[in-house]
Amino acid sequence: MSLLVVGTVAFDAIETPFGKTDKIVGGAASYIALAASYFTKNIGLVSVIGDDFPQDFLQLLKKQSVDLSGLQQKKGEKSFFWAGKYHNDLNSRDTLVTELNVLATFDPVVPEAYKSCDFLMLGNLMPQVQQKVIQQLHKRPKLIVLDTMNFWMDSALDELMKTIALVDVLTINDSEARQLSGEYSLVKAAQKILAMGPKVLIIKKGEHGALLFNKEEVFFAPALPLEEVYDPTGAGDSFAGGFIGFLAQTKDISFENMKRAIIHGSAMASFTVEKFGTERLVGLTQKNIDERLQEFVELVQFDISFVNE
Amino acid sequence: MSLLVVGTVAFDAIETPFGKTDKIVGGAASYIALAASYFTKNIGLVSVIGDDFPQDFLQLLKKQSVDLSGLQQKKGEKSFFWAGKYHNDLNSRDTLVTELNVLATFDPVVPEAYKSCDFLMLGNLMPQVQQKVIQQLHKRPKLIVLDTMNFWMDSALDELMKTIALVDVLTINDSEARQLSGEYSLVKAAQKILAMGPKVLIIKKGEHGALLFNKEEVFFAPALPLEEVYDPTGAGDSFAGGFIGFLAQTKDISFENMKRAIIHGSAMASFTVEKFGTERLVGLTQKNIDERLQEFVELVQFDISFVNE
Repeated sequence: MSLLVVGTVAFDAIETPFGKTDKIVGGAASYIALAASYFTKNIGLVSVIGDDFPQDFLQLLKKQSVDLSGLQQKKGEKSFFWAGKYHNDLNSRDTLVTELNVLATFDPVVPEAYKSCDFLMLGNLMPQVQQKVIQQLHKRPKLIVLDTMNFWMDSALDELMKTIALVDVLTINDSEARQLSGEYSLVKAAQKILAMGPKVLIIKKGEHGALLFNKEEVFFAPALPLEEVYDPTGAGDSFAGGFIGFLAQTKDISFENMKRAIIHGSAMASFTVEKFGTERLVGLTQKNIDERLQEFVELVQFDISFVNE
Repeated sequence: MSLLVVGTVAFDAIETPFGKTDKIVGGAASYIALAASYFTKNIGLVSVIGDDFPQDFLQLLKKQSVDLSGLQQKKGEKSFFWAGKYHNDLNSRDTLVTELNVLATFDPVVPEAYKSCDFLMLGNLMPQVQQKVIQQLHKRPKLIVLDTMNFWMDSALDELMKTIALVDVLTINDSEARQLSGEYSLVKAAQKILAMGPKVLIIKKGEHGALLFNKEEVFFAPALPLEEVYDPTGAGDSFAGGFIGFLAQTKDISFENMKRAIIHGSAMASFTVEKFGTERLVGLTQKNIDERLQEFVELVQFDISFVNE
């Protein structure tokens, strides 16, 4: 097993200024696994669903070579469901419904074949569940990436801090970085958060791009200016999936390669927001992805090599 | 005359979460001229002050080779004064005091020696005054750059549209681009605004960087993540000054060179916000500027040249 993905596989109902959906497939692990599957083919999934979940999405994951032996299916129970409505600027949203359902009692079981994974992506989930996955592994993965959110900072900070101390890379958004560190300056926030355990911090800024920090360096990845953003749901998860999928493919966890990985993550996120739910992440070709990556290269490419010459 | 700068030379009183100032030197043209003076030495200034303005700042401009023969000094009158207070996130502010004073009757007179300038920077000011400057020139400059703000969109839109139609490059912030175009997507906003006359649009996003558009291309320049931002006042003007100063120095108005110019503008803005008012823009060395430019290069540099190979 190259990459183990943990997170929700669930239903979302989404309303944006451009339209609304009924219950559609969502969940952090759905986006992460799909995005990562374009870069690495040896992916295992640990999650839980009810018996209401559509088989065709599971078939789609299998077709993308995502192994589902770690996906628990609970008879007579319902999948996790979230409904939300985005404000006009798409930068903020209200949660309308949260039904935990199968997630309320989720006890992750890591299949034997996954226990020696090289890369572990902990999608947004209860911090205790994330820890339980790490504890079941035979060896420490080469790289553990953790995504989390302000909900756990508000409701389970102690457990979250324990999980953060166990990982190599933490991904959160800018307001969460400020909340977690108590610092307004993202430079200061990064240094405080890196002192909590992770060697690398990624601060996601949505349409404003993302920052990659280690203790000595900083890198900025832009977001692609898009004509239409229909639905930001899953953008952060697609970003994480592209990031770790590329690292699993290249097996290089240097800061230099993480810069490339963050561009790949940004490219996958730029696809996701163009349609509702996971729709745009289905059926991408290598050519689609290469062209998108090329747009990122052109977006920030400049030559001031004459400096100091 | 290589570069003609038009705009306010004035007093500001500023309050940020980090402190407050008494009346200090401010005004769009002060920042623009200072920032540009690090790149080109042939600068003329058209503006107006009262007899209350400090001579030492005028001496400073002269020392930076800024010609002041177009600066009107009104005996017995007071300079333009603005007081404002920034909110905690520094991204928004309240205006506390606006005293037009000499600006209320400002009738710009362009000295003969400036009338064949190659580059014209119209700093934020009444659109009618900006037009009057253009009308006095002997020939159309190689490049006219216009900076404006939402205040004129609200109060003098017709005159503003006339001015916009006369210029080559327009610089506004993201919310102003949305207001002017009626489009939320910045990509769509840019295309609408470019249809109003300018060949190039720069959308300033403060701590989130800036976007450079022409009809076919887009370039993104990051802002440097800073440990401390004390005072955002003048950041946009310093940006404009660095931008046009670099273009005037290199005499190359291609889109490729505008990418370099926007990085130079971003570098000058990154200095300005580190201290109150114009303080940080005084006494910079070439080494200071080169090192800052190098930080921008490193911030966005990545290598995915293997794409499509």
